[in-house]
Amino acid sequence: MASLVPVTVERLGAAFGKLPGIGPKTAQRLAFHCLRAPAEQVTALANALLAVQEVVTVCPTCFFIAEGGVCPVCSDARRDPSIVCVVEDAMDVLAIERSGEFRGMYHVLGGSLSPLEGRGPESLHLAELEARIQDGNVAELVVATDPDVEGEATAHYVARRFGQRGVTVSRLAHGLPAGGALQYADEVTVARAFSGRHPV
Amino acid sequence: MASLVPVTVERLGAAFGKLPGIGPKTAQRLAFHCLRAPAEQVTALANALLAVQEVVTVCPTCFFIAEGGVCPVCSDARRDPSIVCVVEDAMDVLAIERSGEFRGMYHVLGGSLSPLEGRGPESLHLAELEARIQDGNVAELVVATDPDVEGEATAHYVARRFGQRGVTVSRLAHGLPAGGALQYADEVTVARAFSGRHPV
Repeated sequence: MASLVPVTVERLGAAFGKLPGIGPKTAQRLAFHCLRAPAEQVTALANALLAVQEVVTVCPTCFFIAEGGVCPVCSDARRDPSIVCVVEDAMDVLAIERSGEFRGMYHVLGGSLSPLEGRGPESLHLAELEARIQDGNVAELVVATDPDVEGEATAHYVARRFGQRGVTVSRLAHGLPAGGALQYADEVTVARAFSGRHPV
Repeated sequence: MASLVPVTVERLGAAFGKLPGIGPKTAQRLAFHCLRAPAEQVTALANALLAVQEVVTVCPTCFFIAEGGVCPVCSDARRDPSIVCVVEDAMDVLAIERSGEFRGMYHVLGGSLSPLEGRGPESLHLAELEARIQDGNVAELVVATDPDVEGEATAHYVARRFGQRGVTVSRLAHGLPAGGALQYADEVTVARAFSGRHPV
């Protein structure tokens, strides 16, 4: 049966299957789609994959994505370098920028702490964060790691490690998401919304 | 905000977003994943996309995938050329081959009839099927189009068009799927299982 599918198609399916969230069935469907799709669409995807590797680098300061040098956030003189938002992933930076709420700098950790999966502090860009703090002009760290177990562990670690160095460490508020319905919120979210309640 | 993301990354996200079943959020996540993924993985995907376009062709007889000439099914002398299974898509051929139940030939229509979406008979490989029948040695067409509205319409069209030419046209049986539970089957499936009941 396998011999009915050319090796190149098998190989394409396997390559798609390495992407996150794409199982073997979806990978095969994507591979077969590429056989029927307009040639320029498939070539565009291949070229974009190659271009990204050539052009895109990581910012040496904050580890956000960049093109060659320092990233657009770190090189923006209008932003406040005294407040640094610590996130797990480059995509988190985009989510925060969409909110329009933050005008400081970022530090992308490159993941979260997970003792169970063997991801300790040395696997994250924490030494580089320490160096930024030692350089002097960081007054506050806003920890914006994910509101899950690993994200909370990472936030606690950051607070413990950097909290006693003249740096204020804060954490994004937890509570009900905007636009949601209370009755559909999970119990942890409701509990956190209660403990974080504030006078109106 | 958009300027934070390099054009190459935007372009990669857009290219992923053209794939079926991949929305804009997933496309962006895949693009960002490729920034962090091992270089050889990303290059492998790019090369597989390019290789598939160079190497893979469509069988001139049955429109299944091939490498240059006639496909492995059409060139297999042990298969019975008098019975042709008509399917919508190349992946349907793989599903039927996995069953091990069929040793005839195939004809891949390249889709289904859908008047609502403007897909008429001329959009499918029906003229080529007609030519195969006129060539003589086809005795039976097994129509294995999908059990949905478009697939049924296509099956009826094939039966009407080719049924009066000395060719038997049959349709795959409808009924309860193996391993399923009766109580979870939808009403159309149960109705078809009743009307197709057979003595034991």
